[in-house]
Amino acid sequence: MRPTHGPNDESSTDRFAADPAFTLHEGGKLRIRPTRSIESIADLALTYTPGVARVSSAIAAEPGLARRFTWAPRVVAVVSDGTAVLGLGDIGPVAALPVMEGKACLFSEFAGLSAVPVVLSTTDTDAIVETVAAIAPSFGGINLEDISAPRCFEIEQRLRERLDIPVMHDDQHGTAIVVLAALRNAARCVGRPLSDLRVVVAGAGAAGFACTKILLEAGIGDIAVADSKGVLHPGREDLTPVKRWLAEHTNSAGHAGAMTDALAGADVYLGLSGGSVPEAAIASMAKDCIVFSLANPIPEVDPDMAAKYAAVVATGRSDLPNQINNVLAFPGVFRGAIDAGATAITEEMKLAAATAIADVVGDDVRPDYVVPSPLDRRVAAAVADAVAACAREQHVTV
Amino acid sequence: MRPTHGPNDESSTDRFAADPAFTLHEGGKLRIRPTRSIESIADLALTYTPGVARVSSAIAAEPGLARRFTWAPRVVAVVSDGTAVLGLGDIGPVAALPVMEGKACLFSEFAGLSAVPVVLSTTDTDAIVETVAAIAPSFGGINLEDISAPRCFEIEQRLRERLDIPVMHDDQHGTAIVVLAALRNAARCVGRPLSDLRVVVAGAGAAGFACTKILLEAGIGDIAVADSKGVLHPGREDLTPVKRWLAEHTNSAGHAGAMTDALAGADVYLGLSGGSVPEAAIASMAKDCIVFSLANPIPEVDPDMAAKYAAVVATGRSDLPNQINNVLAFPGVFRGAIDAGATAITEEMKLAAATAIADVVGDDVRPDYVVPSPLDRRVAAAVADAVAACAREQHVTV
Repeated sequence: MRPTHGPNDESSTDRFAADPAFTLHEGGKLRIRPTRSIESIADLALTYTPGVARVSSAIAAEPGLARRFTWAPRVVAVVSDGTAVLGLGDIGPVAALPVMEGKACLFSEFAGLSAVPVVLSTTDTDAIVETVAAIAPSFGGINLEDISAPRCFEIEQRLRERLDIPVMHDDQHGTAIVVLAALRNAARCVGRPLSDLRVVVAGAGAAGFACTKILLEAGIGDIAVADSKGVLHPGREDLTPVKRWLAEHTNSAGHAGAMTDALAGADVYLGLSGGSVPEAAIASMAKDCIVFSLANPIPEVDPDMAAKYAAVVATGRSDLPNQINNVLAFPGVFRGAIDAGATAITEEMKLAAATAIADVVGDDVRPDYVVPSPLDRRVAAAVADAVAACAREQHVTV
Repeated sequence: MRPTHGPNDESSTDRFAADPAFTLHEGGKLRIRPTRSIESIADLALTYTPGVARVSSAIAAEPGLARRFTWAPRVVAVVSDGTAVLGLGDIGPVAALPVMEGKACLFSEFAGLSAVPVVLSTTDTDAIVETVAAIAPSFGGINLEDISAPRCFEIEQRLRERLDIPVMHDDQHGTAIVVLAALRNAARCVGRPLSDLRVVVAGAGAAGFACTKILLEAGIGDIAVADSKGVLHPGREDLTPVKRWLAEHTNSAGHAGAMTDALAGADVYLGLSGGSVPEAAIASMAKDCIVFSLANPIPEVDPDMAAKYAAVVATGRSDLPNQINNVLAFPGVFRGAIDAGATAITEEMKLAAATAIADVVGDDVRPDYVVPSPLDRRVAAAVADAVAACAREQHVTV
């Protein structure tokens, strides 16, 4: 039996040898192992037949015992069709695998959960819903990932309705939770209550929709959301259902022009769109403004330029302060939901997660420290406890 | 963050504490872990964004790189709908989980492969095929398990046609491979060539069909197959397509009565049916006969009674000699197919696996040692090498 991976035939002229990202990915980033080793016939007879039959029979008679005697409740499926992967777009399921494996690594490292990358050979909404519903008894939670809008909204909603385990599209809600956490602390830095802030959201895709929703739920009244054609307002005739919902629930100021026009006098810019914002638009924002520019690897607003005008700047980049990184949210959110036996992840649980993330920073808050480091091990534990407590209060548990 | 599992609330009066099978299953039997830990921002930036984007981009441009830089090619999905679990029958997907977890443990222990239990909330043939096809890019092989006949035949065949990774229904082929291995060595014990033997197969379900097929391929000409209504012959009008195939390809002697009638003068009894065979029927078999009675936990033929008449007796039980256990086959079969990059598991690969298992016993063969111990670590390695070599010879590799 040869090694399943190892020194490669091409190694003498390996075009990947110089990049540590490829070295790290050699053979994949995950492995499944038994929790107990099989050393004897007795071990085998308990792990497999005949002993396993007693456990299966007990679960058949009392399904709730699966929570105790199987691994499934502590396993998250990281499901993607590969249509909206990072900044790479529609690269397909196989090329999406390294991202889903990475996500699974983070579930393990930060929340002690097992996670299985499940990439799909279909991009059809109905087929994705049916497939995930069919495999759901194998898992304790479903993390939808990198599925393009607007299909992602319907897929998440239908699976939430159909399944009694937590389902969350992380590109929407993970981002939203961390943005709210960062904005809570940024507002503290500039001494303003959240409800006073005038916010412009650039981007009306998955993240733009979820961020806007959570900011509304957190009490921010004045939000203008823009897509590539300008600010969303009810008079536009080119709106998808989700954009129409946004147009009807935001923009109390009645903006109808370009995103940059709405920025004049605004307190917060939230960039989720890519592209580039001119300096004049940032310069037109209110005093002590807040710039969250999350396009990766190139933020919409140059961070050095933003610092000339803004009191707080955050990006998605790991080499700059205030990294808005979903890893602050999703491991703890799923762990808390699973710990509580939650049957869903509610809006209240997401708000509780955002507050918990912000509270880890606590009184150490500074303009360059509005969110914890993605490596801060306190975060997932605090988020899990807050989410689990919220689930129990809301009685959304099994 | 509380422990995901551990001391249970019921522990003071825990009705499961006395059974070591339940203790071993506490919290489940599997765990997924990253192959490299994440200690620094640099680790995070290689495992996840931005470094992972370079790996995903490379795979998008050249899909074959997924074999090297993702875990998927070395992951087997253990797929079941829970309709034919061990001797327990149709207990459903959740109760089937401990069995699929156990199988996954064995893939890891014996073949160094990762394996994911995938239990399904549907028993519809079309839905199962569509679901497995949809998730197939996540895996390097599909082990179908404990799916009831006759659906199991169509599901396996359609998935084999549709997918370019190995697909094997283990209840059929794992059993068939080990039965052939054992019969090869049993024939040596009694000094008979395989082609001389008159065989009676009791059971025309998944295992009966596959065992009969592999025995025909191995050169055994005289086989009678019986279901609960008697020996299959072309004159019967109650036959499913699979049973009709069997009736048309076996029973050259023209039996038309009960299974026990066909046993008179037969050399081999292969029990795959459950139930009980009367002593008179075994006594009617030929001198130096061979009895493989595989119902578990209660063999169709009492092993002590069988020993009065048979030269070789084998069962499925771990507490008796000559245990016919699928674990001798499936880990090495999948490992060999995956090592070779095989796009399918062919009949020739199964025959090679059977010979490899028999050859591990080699010249140590004795009536109470016709198959290796299920714990013999040489077996999976020998099977993997034989299967991989066969795949390369047949050019069924990527």
